[in-house]
Amino acid sequence: MSRLVNGVKSFSTTASSLLADATTPTARSSFQVFRDVPSIRGLRRQLLQKDRTVGFVPTMGALHEGHLSLIRQAARENTDIFVSIFVNPTQFGVTEDLSSYPRTWDSDVAKLEQLNEELSRLGESSASAGRITAIFAPTSKAMYPGSPPSSEVDGDGSFVTITPLSGKLEGGSRPVFFRGVATVCMKLFNITTPDRVYFGQKDVQQTVVIKRMVEDFHVGSEVRIIETAREHDGLALSSRNVYLGDRRRAVGLTIYKALKAAEDQYLAGKTSRADILGSAQSLAESVLAEQQALSPSERAIYEVDYISLADPDTLDEVDVVDPAKGAILSTAFKMAPLEESNPGENCGLGDGKVPVRLIDNLILHPRA
Amino acid sequence: MSRLVNGVKSFSTTASSLLADATTPTARSSFQVFRDVPSIRGLRRQLLQKDRTVGFVPTMGALHEGHLSLIRQAARENTDIFVSIFVNPTQFGVTEDLSSYPRTWDSDVAKLEQLNEELSRLGESSASAGRITAIFAPTSKAMYPGSPPSSEVDGDGSFVTITPLSGKLEGGSRPVFFRGVATVCMKLFNITTPDRVYFGQKDVQQTVVIKRMVEDFHVGSEVRIIETAREHDGLALSSRNVYLGDRRRAVGLTIYKALKAAEDQYLAGKTSRADILGSAQSLAESVLAEQQALSPSERAIYEVDYISLADPDTLDEVDVVDPAKGAILSTAFKMAPLEESNPGENCGLGDGKVPVRLIDNLILHPRA
Repeated sequence: MSRLVNGVKSFSTTASSLLADATTPTARSSFQVFRDVPSIRGLRRQLLQKDRTVGFVPTMGALHEGHLSLIRQAARENTDIFVSIFVNPTQFGVTEDLSSYPRTWDSDVAKLEQLNEELSRLGESSASAGRITAIFAPTSKAMYPGSPPSSEVDGDGSFVTITPLSGKLEGGSRPVFFRGVATVCMKLFNITTPDRVYFGQKDVQQTVVIKRMVEDFHVGSEVRIIETAREHDGLALSSRNVYLGDRRRAVGLTIYKALKAAEDQYLAGKTSRADILGSAQSLAESVLAEQQALSPSERAIYEVDYISLADPDTLDEVDVVDPAKGAILSTAFKMAPLEESNPGENCGLGDGKVPVRLIDNLILHPRA
Repeated sequence: MSRLVNGVKSFSTTASSLLADATTPTARSSFQVFRDVPSIRGLRRQLLQKDRTVGFVPTMGALHEGHLSLIRQAARENTDIFVSIFVNPTQFGVTEDLSSYPRTWDSDVAKLEQLNEELSRLGESSASAGRITAIFAPTSKAMYPGSPPSSEVDGDGSFVTITPLSGKLEGGSRPVFFRGVATVCMKLFNITTPDRVYFGQKDVQQTVVIKRMVEDFHVGSEVRIIETAREHDGLALSSRNVYLGDRRRAVGLTIYKALKAAEDQYLAGKTSRADILGSAQSLAESVLAEQQALSPSERAIYEVDYISLADPDTLDEVDVVDPAKGAILSTAFKMAPLEESNPGENCGLGDGKVPVRLIDNLILHPRA
């Protein structure tokens, strides 16, 4: 199925012809896996000479429908899609879940092959549909060729820092997170020099930080933000959801319900922080009280990390929403490990023992 | 002589034809001045499509023979040379000489026009000689489109930090300097996407920091380091030399003599720090003692900031030079303001009242 030549792994028999002549439409879906920088740069140079456009989707793997929706959007706007799969160490704090972050290479590749087949079928009815051309899955040493990257706030290394944005909201409890994200994205953008880069609305602070970085450093790529992909009931898709299990999954939906309650206030004409966030807070408190009244084998407990109503550019908290500007409503919940499990209960990957931090947000759009 | 159209200033009558068809050789030297990012990006895109190569020489203006030697080297290796002139605020500390840094636009442009004529004459006898195509002289707002850049160590902004390299040597007394240099270079490299970038050996720590940045962030440009340009007696050229005046100029040569004394030790086979730096230190001390013995109207006093013998990659101080690796010998002298001046004396720009910090270095090359 695959072969490894000079750090390049080809999937499907038609993959090698893609490099030889990237303008010939391939008969079926195919992509190559690149593990080092020079090889993917070589492909990028060829595509540039052929006037093809590259949409880039950076991921840490553990692909779900949310990632696939980014790729589908990229396929509408570019001839070629590069997907990176790299669990970036510098965005995990020393006490965070780097080692337990899900790594699902085989299933990720299968999902991308399947998606390329879907795009290929679409391409038959529409000339504009792009395909996944390259998976970039570098080693940590390739991405951090200097000294090993530090996860300490005051640690040494080559970093991009975006302040004060990086210290707000998520950055409050994760002090190295956005430094790590900005740093790895600058590297990845320099390597792949994409025409467009794709990020999900779900990580809203990430989208604000990346847009600021691209503007401030004059990165020559367009930043495209794609709406959060959700389950049928509204729970935002996340690679970490696999750890929830049924009980925490059900209670975890409160994060979305709380945001919707707040959004309803804004849609009903309210603009004050007290009115908008009050409804989210009281919903979160009442669901928690219900859970606490249950027995340890029945309940799922959480802690609300923050509920924020912030300016869409600066992420400063606002007291009143300017209807001409709108706002970002965002929140983080920490789902505690289950205290007791029941025989046969689906407790998720890690048997319900892994604490799971959920984040979600809604954009309060400017009023016309 | 020049006209301003959409932020683009053309010099000479043939300049506008360059953008229209960059492959037509211009009859005489010419370049355009770009003040905003989109316009120079447009030119860059055209050159890329025509397979022309860009050598980039970042400067802060106040051009001297050292800058011109970088451009001459770039002309040997590229078809097109971009020169930026931008006094970058973020590399000056709050107490440093941003406001007094020499700004000599008209004379800079004249020097570049003259150099382009020289390159044009050379080009007639050699097909490979490139020309200066673009001067990029952006506003501070164009370079720092977000919040105004901070010069405080803990100030906010979007920065590139390269540690621990940035804190050594020059970074010891100038804590924001290399953060500012790395930040502005990342911006400039992203804007001009050069094939090669040119830096002078004189700012040796800058060359080490930039090489580290380019490697760590996978910037797609080759870093070329060009030997320090010197006066006939050995004083390194510097934009700040105009402040010296005759008296401090003569005494300031001690910085070079001290380095040469140390280099002589290495060339004679010595490898220990004491042997190598000892000779530099005693020379610096004896010249200073001679000056102190003179009257205030005759002497020029200095303070030795540091004399360093460092590893060429890490800039860590070394006790013994590894002959297989060599070392960087570098120093900084602070020339104090003149205490008293004499009638008719050439005291330099600022009448000898501006303190001048001189830096210089020599590479101790590995022994064969």
